[in-house]
Amino acid sequence: MARIIDGKAHAAALREEAGRRARRMLELTGVQPGLSVVIVGDDPASRLYVKNKGEQAAAAGFRSETHTLPETISQDELLDLVARLNLDPAVHGILVQLPLPAHMDAQAVLAAIDPAKDVDGFHVINAGRLAVGLPALVPCTPLGCLRLLKAELDQLKGLEAVVVGRSNIVGKPMAQLLLQADCTVTIAHSRTRDLPQVCRRADILVAAVGRAEMIRGDWIKPGATVIDVGINRVPSRDPAKAAEGKTRVVGDVAFDEAVEVAGAITPVPGGVGPMTIACLLDNTLTAAARILERDPAEFA
Amino acid sequence: MARIIDGKAHAAALREEAGRRARRMLELTGVQPGLSVVIVGDDPASRLYVKNKGEQAAAAGFRSETHTLPETISQDELLDLVARLNLDPAVHGILVQLPLPAHMDAQAVLAAIDPAKDVDGFHVINAGRLAVGLPALVPCTPLGCLRLLKAELDQLKGLEAVVVGRSNIVGKPMAQLLLQADCTVTIAHSRTRDLPQVCRRADILVAAVGRAEMIRGDWIKPGATVIDVGINRVPSRDPAKAAEGKTRVVGDVAFDEAVEVAGAITPVPGGVGPMTIACLLDNTLTAAARILERDPAEFA
Repeated sequence: MARIIDGKAHAAALREEAGRRARRMLELTGVQPGLSVVIVGDDPASRLYVKNKGEQAAAAGFRSETHTLPETISQDELLDLVARLNLDPAVHGILVQLPLPAHMDAQAVLAAIDPAKDVDGFHVINAGRLAVGLPALVPCTPLGCLRLLKAELDQLKGLEAVVVGRSNIVGKPMAQLLLQADCTVTIAHSRTRDLPQVCRRADILVAAVGRAEMIRGDWIKPGATVIDVGINRVPSRDPAKAAEGKTRVVGDVAFDEAVEVAGAITPVPGGVGPMTIACLLDNTLTAAARILERDPAEFA
Repeated sequence: MARIIDGKAHAAALREEAGRRARRMLELTGVQPGLSVVIVGDDPASRLYVKNKGEQAAAAGFRSETHTLPETISQDELLDLVARLNLDPAVHGILVQLPLPAHMDAQAVLAAIDPAKDVDGFHVINAGRLAVGLPALVPCTPLGCLRLLKAELDQLKGLEAVVVGRSNIVGKPMAQLLLQADCTVTIAHSRTRDLPQVCRRADILVAAVGRAEMIRGDWIKPGATVIDVGINRVPSRDPAKAAEGKTRVVGDVAFDEAVEVAGAITPVPGGVGPMTIACLLDNTLTAAARILERDPAEFA
């Protein structure tokens, strides 16, 4: 049976560390790291997610502010807010919650964020800096996956890593991070011919496809470390509850099968998910340190 | 026996096409595409390479200029020239020949080039645009490799591609291009544990490591398409000539062995090499079209 990687515990430790580092930054520089989260519209899931970000930032001793804008706001008004936040010296991290309303061009809004404050790591300049190996702000989810892998494995160097999924938010930056960690990296996707066989090569398997339980137990190399990024809603196991519309959350990996084969595996929920906001705090500290022209490691 | 991919012929055809497109651009817009090449110092190999670039651009009907600066020039003087070229409406492509003298910061010089005119595709913004799938200027060598592959293979989709080497100039952008072409892409490198076995998976094998004849015939899957980016100088086969210091050029692949196994293979010299300058002309046309806010395909 695989070890279950406790993402909640790792995330709690990382949040605590972020709190220590924020205090240290305040002591050494007089500056409190500041995170500004912008949300447009009333989507309940986005609202909850933004609330969690704000609360966790505040709990870690960050200056935390949330800008809640109506669905009807124009793109220019949103861009004006972003421009003000870019100039605000108390703000070190800016996060515009996606998705944006349909009348807005999300690419244009993300491109307007100062890359030095782009704590989601979605700006083209941060993607480019990651690609060429310069210091970058890296998307939070792959950063969280890398942290779990480093905690789980003595050494990543030379391992065969397979990333299933090639999104800009998870798959592609994940591949870059694993390559920087000296893994042999394969990126697989919907056009991959024999996905089970490709997955079976993986010492490290990262699943980020968004299809419930697609990756089966017999696709997994015995002893592999499996990181499941998927968050998929499926009907409840209990037919009566399912008939009432009750759902449960599963990953991209068929957990019950995979746990019999893998060496270690993240559960869903409680695996990668909790790491994302913790990494957002970490990114905000990194951004603040670089804006202050200090080495982020100084505040360790 | 593998088909030998004739890079010289492909490059000649691409240069001819670039000439047609340049004439078409001039007819339709009144603008002649312009390439400006900057070289600092006296390195004979760089001088020759720059001379070839200028001559091929001129032969294809481009406006072509070369700025030859003394080794002793300061970085600020070089940056001033780049700034002037950025503003010059007759210049659509700027290429600063590398390597630069040791007293200069090449990264800072490359970062000063307007990304819209960065026909070498080395600017962080172009690396980022390539990574996230936006229109980008892409480094010439991987672009040339992709052209050879598309000419050679009916379909790239779903093929297993292995890129050996992870440089910013070849390996990493090559992997991005193959991923965009829907290959399953593996990036292997010096830390890869069982490189022969990884190479044996490849329907498409791109070798860009800079080690003479490292990749042996029995590392190649029968029928694979092999693209050899290496240019390595080794002693002449003739011991008497070798004793006189005579050399010959070989690739990263042991050609005589590989040709027995592969389905198609690029020779060295005469494979990838000639494609690079032809792709530079193509990039200059792309840059000019985008600066004119026209679709590059309009001038096909």
